[in-house]
Amino acid sequence: MDVADIHILSAGTALPDLPVDNATLARHFGMGTIWEQWIDAFVGTRTRHLAVDLGTGEVHYSLADLGEIAARQALGRAGLDPIDIDVIVLNTATPDQLMPTTANTIADRLGINNIPTFQIQSGCSGAVQAIELGRLLLASGHRTALVIGGDLCARFFDAKTDLNSLPPGELVNMVLFGDGAGAVVLSTDPTPGSAVLRSVFSRFTGLGRAPGQALEWFGPNDARDRPFAVEDYKAIEKYVPAMAADVLEELLDDLGWEPGDLTHLMPPQLSGKMTETIMKRLGDSPAREISCVAETGNTGNGLPYLQLARALAEMGPGDRAVGIAIESSKWIGSGYALERL
Amino acid sequence: MDVADIHILSAGTALPDLPVDNATLARHFGMGTIWEQWIDAFVGTRTRHLAVDLGTGEVHYSLADLGEIAARQALGRAGLDPIDIDVIVLNTATPDQLMPTTANTIADRLGINNIPTFQIQSGCSGAVQAIELGRLLLASGHRTALVIGGDLCARFFDAKTDLNSLPPGELVNMVLFGDGAGAVVLSTDPTPGSAVLRSVFSRFTGLGRAPGQALEWFGPNDARDRPFAVEDYKAIEKYVPAMAADVLEELLDDLGWEPGDLTHLMPPQLSGKMTETIMKRLGDSPAREISCVAETGNTGNGLPYLQLARALAEMGPGDRAVGIAIESSKWIGSGYALERL
Repeated sequence: MDVADIHILSAGTALPDLPVDNATLARHFGMGTIWEQWIDAFVGTRTRHLAVDLGTGEVHYSLADLGEIAARQALGRAGLDPIDIDVIVLNTATPDQLMPTTANTIADRLGINNIPTFQIQSGCSGAVQAIELGRLLLASGHRTALVIGGDLCARFFDAKTDLNSLPPGELVNMVLFGDGAGAVVLSTDPTPGSAVLRSVFSRFTGLGRAPGQALEWFGPNDARDRPFAVEDYKAIEKYVPAMAADVLEELLDDLGWEPGDLTHLMPPQLSGKMTETIMKRLGDSPAREISCVAETGNTGNGLPYLQLARALAEMGPGDRAVGIAIESSKWIGSGYALERL
Repeated sequence: MDVADIHILSAGTALPDLPVDNATLARHFGMGTIWEQWIDAFVGTRTRHLAVDLGTGEVHYSLADLGEIAARQALGRAGLDPIDIDVIVLNTATPDQLMPTTANTIADRLGINNIPTFQIQSGCSGAVQAIELGRLLLASGHRTALVIGGDLCARFFDAKTDLNSLPPGELVNMVLFGDGAGAVVLSTDPTPGSAVLRSVFSRFTGLGRAPGQALEWFGPNDARDRPFAVEDYKAIEKYVPAMAADVLEELLDDLGWEPGDLTHLMPPQLSGKMTETIMKRLGDSPAREISCVAETGNTGNGLPYLQLARALAEMGPGDRAVGIAIESSKWIGSGYALERL
């Protein structure tokens, strides 16, 4: 079935407080300058925004807080009111609660009622999956969708951890991630400056492969006898660049676009260093790279929206952009293509 | 856009171990026969299946375990192999992990690869939302969808709780819920015995209303200083029957069906007692009631599949069924209509 044109009207973003740099993290955890240099050299993420106060351990923002801010910004930029929204989709790995969904909490705060609301549980491909679902819902008869996504690592971030006691697969979590959310408004009707969503897909490719990333939640009776967050950074380094190249190739092939047709490229954003490696693997391209992970940290389900907000602000008539997100948790490749009319 | 006919080919279910009756629960928690009679009279749930061993507190099944069993049963009943599946959707309030999703874990176990997989975070309306998403995905070009859902209360079930110390809003959780999962296979092509999905919708109606149900997860650094599961049973009793009647009316109106056209009715299944109340509110109908909560407990995201498996086994040519699920967490009304050709 052909899907009618769906347009991304606008994007909004929300990052908590001021950026925290590596020197501040190193000082806080008593890790010294060698560790700081290690982050710079091997992770390449210079700052991140945290919802948790390093000094007090207090968490100042919920996902609903950040999602609401991003949603209001996206609505404002689209010139729409909450009442104009026909459906909400939210993607996250870290919902505020198991029930009710954060999507419904935000709907309530925005004053929205009597519409379908979906929440996708996901990793780094979540934003693409949510946009995909938004597109399907609009194609089935709805007119305007609010798509929101984000993650908070704050509830996993122990400001009192002794970093020297952590194995590398857990230690890296303390520097990779940041808190943040974003939102886009999708519509069946274009507006000046909107971009057509030419293609969007996500695909599980994890058969027989161990997860590259795992994140646990605990019930009140769970023994906390397992690591709550583990990265297989080596596996990620090995597989993600090739997966990103596959997604790019498939998007271009499907659309009959040449690499030279792209004006903007939004590569995966696990870390500053990884994005550099991926960009090399994607080959020479005249497209302008839209990356933010070195400043924002990996905000997971929020990150593609941060890129989209930057891309939409830059794209001119006729410009073509591709966004790629790779979920290493169980190896999902995902991407989408935009064209500004 | 008109959605092409989507057919439910089959359903599968999975319930752990033997049913646990109220006398066993009362004995285990040292609560006596008055409490047992209170459950019978006011909750109306006689048995439930638990993934947790009451004696040892050990959890014997994960959601992936139960979901896999249900999925294999549904596939077998449809005469299909995992390789025939083009897309997976899973709905739950209680995923095994935050990442990877349980949908992807099950895909891996079934030997499925290179397809889109979605996981919906949801309460009691989750199965309807997942079927809705499955239908949209098939309408967009996929041919066969495996839709799986379920919940495990096991990680919240403290076999050592002193029930006398719990407020009523938490105490009721110990008797309402059961563990279970189910699955359906959706296809663009009918098979003998399959039913056409005539309508499906879900709608958030929680604006300005406090949640009727909340379920928390904990990160490793979270203080466990809040109740992890709360029911506002009075609010549920007040609102759910009317919401169920609204969903039924809307489904019938949309399809031009009369109440007398229905041969099977699957009402919401919070508890045996609540289902009785809801059935009274829905009015006289020749339709056969398909309920299971009195024996299975409320299995949340799994329950509509348990009903569907029973309904599909009973429906004959020309039969028409409606299923209704109401999510009290933040007040979502949802339902679907089937017709056996």
